[in-house]
Amino acid sequence: MTNKAAPVAFAMERARRLKILGVRRSTLLTATFVLSYVLYLCAGGFVFSYIEGPEEARYRKIVLDQRRVFLEKYPSVEDEALEELLQLVVTAGNRGVYATRNATGEPNWSFGQSVFFSTTVITTIGYGHVTPLSQSGKGFCIFFAVIGIPFTLILVSALVQRLMVPVMAFLEYLDIKFGHRLGALSIRLLHVTLIGSFVLILAMLIPAAIFASMEPEWDYLDAFYYCFISLTTIGLGDYIPGDAPNQQYRPLYKVLTTIYLLFGLTLAMLVLTVFGGIPELHMGHLFDLNSDDLTMDHEKVRLNQNKSTDHRTIIKVSSRRDLDDEDDDDYSRP
Amino acid sequence: MTNKAAPVAFAMERARRLKILGVRRSTLLTATFVLSYVLYLCAGGFVFSYIEGPEEARYRKIVLDQRRVFLEKYPSVEDEALEELLQLVVTAGNRGVYATRNATGEPNWSFGQSVFFSTTVITTIGYGHVTPLSQSGKGFCIFFAVIGIPFTLILVSALVQRLMVPVMAFLEYLDIKFGHRLGALSIRLLHVTLIGSFVLILAMLIPAAIFASMEPEWDYLDAFYYCFISLTTIGLGDYIPGDAPNQQYRPLYKVLTTIYLLFGLTLAMLVLTVFGGIPELHMGHLFDLNSDDLTMDHEKVRLNQNKSTDHRTIIKVSSRRDLDDEDDDDYSRP
Repeated sequence: MTNKAAPVAFAMERARRLKILGVRRSTLLTATFVLSYVLYLCAGGFVFSYIEGPEEARYRKIVLDQRRVFLEKYPSVEDEALEELLQLVVTAGNRGVYATRNATGEPNWSFGQSVFFSTTVITTIGYGHVTPLSQSGKGFCIFFAVIGIPFTLILVSALVQRLMVPVMAFLEYLDIKFGHRLGALSIRLLHVTLIGSFVLILAMLIPAAIFASMEPEWDYLDAFYYCFISLTTIGLGDYIPGDAPNQQYRPLYKVLTTIYLLFGLTLAMLVLTVFGGIPELHMGHLFDLNSDDLTMDHEKVRLNQNKSTDHRTIIKVSSRRDLDDEDDDDYSRP
Repeated sequence: MTNKAAPVAFAMERARRLKILGVRRSTLLTATFVLSYVLYLCAGGFVFSYIEGPEEARYRKIVLDQRRVFLEKYPSVEDEALEELLQLVVTAGNRGVYATRNATGEPNWSFGQSVFFSTTVITTIGYGHVTPLSQSGKGFCIFFAVIGIPFTLILVSALVQRLMVPVMAFLEYLDIKFGHRLGALSIRLLHVTLIGSFVLILAMLIPAAIFASMEPEWDYLDAFYYCFISLTTIGLGDYIPGDAPNQQYRPLYKVLTTIYLLFGLTLAMLVLTVFGGIPELHMGHLFDLNSDDLTMDHEKVRLNQNKSTDHRTIIKVSSRRDLDDEDDDDYSRP
């Protein structure tokens, strides 16, 4: 099993590997998985193209029509001169520089906005509604992220570890309450569903309602879409809270949004950790080279595992302190 | 230690917890950490504001000047009418809809571009240079990401697991070669540095050179900045390859970029996995409530651990198959 295994044992083992059509099962499964992924991307591409293609054409027509109407209204204006102005304005707008009078008024790189930008960089959300323009700004952005992203990961992990204490106590509670009627896996699934629903409500549904009421142009789907796109760290940046022209208390609003993002990301990570603590739901082992070895039946081990091992594994995965676990063992046998 | 510990043992243990000024050490450390994080964000905000503030003002002035020149050249044009047109054009441009004649020409939601968009969503890069416009497009985007993000995580993990085989063999090689001269931790640090440098060259420095030569308007820093911002999944979207107006072989270029992103993310994850396999570099345990317990000295355990345990831990962390490890043990004692 390990690289240190004797060559003879290794050869013996190899003979007992699971193969399909002469290919190791894990390799075949991985190849199938990669293919499904490509197909999934193509399916997504097809649907987006189908839904958004006509929408884009319609929108483009509106803009082109407006441009034509403008030129008809002012026949003295040369097409070329207008084109040049529009290009400049669009390019600037894409970098976050608005030169229309009705813009928010506040500069993009005020201290508060810069802190908001910093947060979106080191959480890897990266809305990109505002981006560094200068070479030194881009260089600093890279430097800031190199330190900041691990910083965020450690912070979020530390907070998740603390939240895992009540979350695991809740699992114990469910176990005591339903353990005689439900199997270990069912209790785990109930647990992750309840925690997931709680986080969905607390980090997405309620904040979405608040954003929908605060932002004049967002309906509830827009607000939910914003929360979802942010907390998954996709961060498309098509919706940014607090950028409405006459937003009151803008700095406070931005600070609260920043806190929401960090808080929401922690809760999202908490759900992932609880989910990741259920070994039955791990699919990764199928693609592992070790899984081809017939000398041990992973599936059987997995299915027959007793409940107490389960619990220990959750805590293990969540804290990732594998060595401490060995202490635990010693400690429980005084 | 575990939640199942007897109440009496628990009370005994509590008396021996590490406290500073009456607060548990881990709580104090976590609070300090949160504070440092806030300070880090403020420092970032300050620097960005300092660097980018004047740059933005300069850029805004250029655009406003151009607008003024245009109005002076065509005195018949009403300020209000121009403002209206510019606003429409900027808003459309921010959503990825360009109505200037000189745009790429290809629609944003062609099949190829939609696949590229799909990839940026489920890898959580989310450039946002193009975003869904319709409510159904946004809804589908959420649905697509809910399935696609775990899909990507499993795929990348599976690929990382396979890459870990040669990477761990390389660690064994370093161990055999330098084990008599260097300590276990030094070998680990050498290993992660070499792997990290290799990935930096393969996934960032070389691709940046290629992008810099392909894109007419990017210098090397721009291209490196693009690679860095993409592979960290920040995805600001200020630089997008293949969008130059007269780009040859655009679809092929986009497909190759998509493959690069998936390949680069896998390599980035590989480095994180190797790094995460060095328990001495884990800081998380400091913030863990368990670390306050004086009944066991984590630091001592950590420092005194022998090398073979180390190796086992890396493999454990990388594969996250805690249960299988128990099999390994059985197997190694035939």
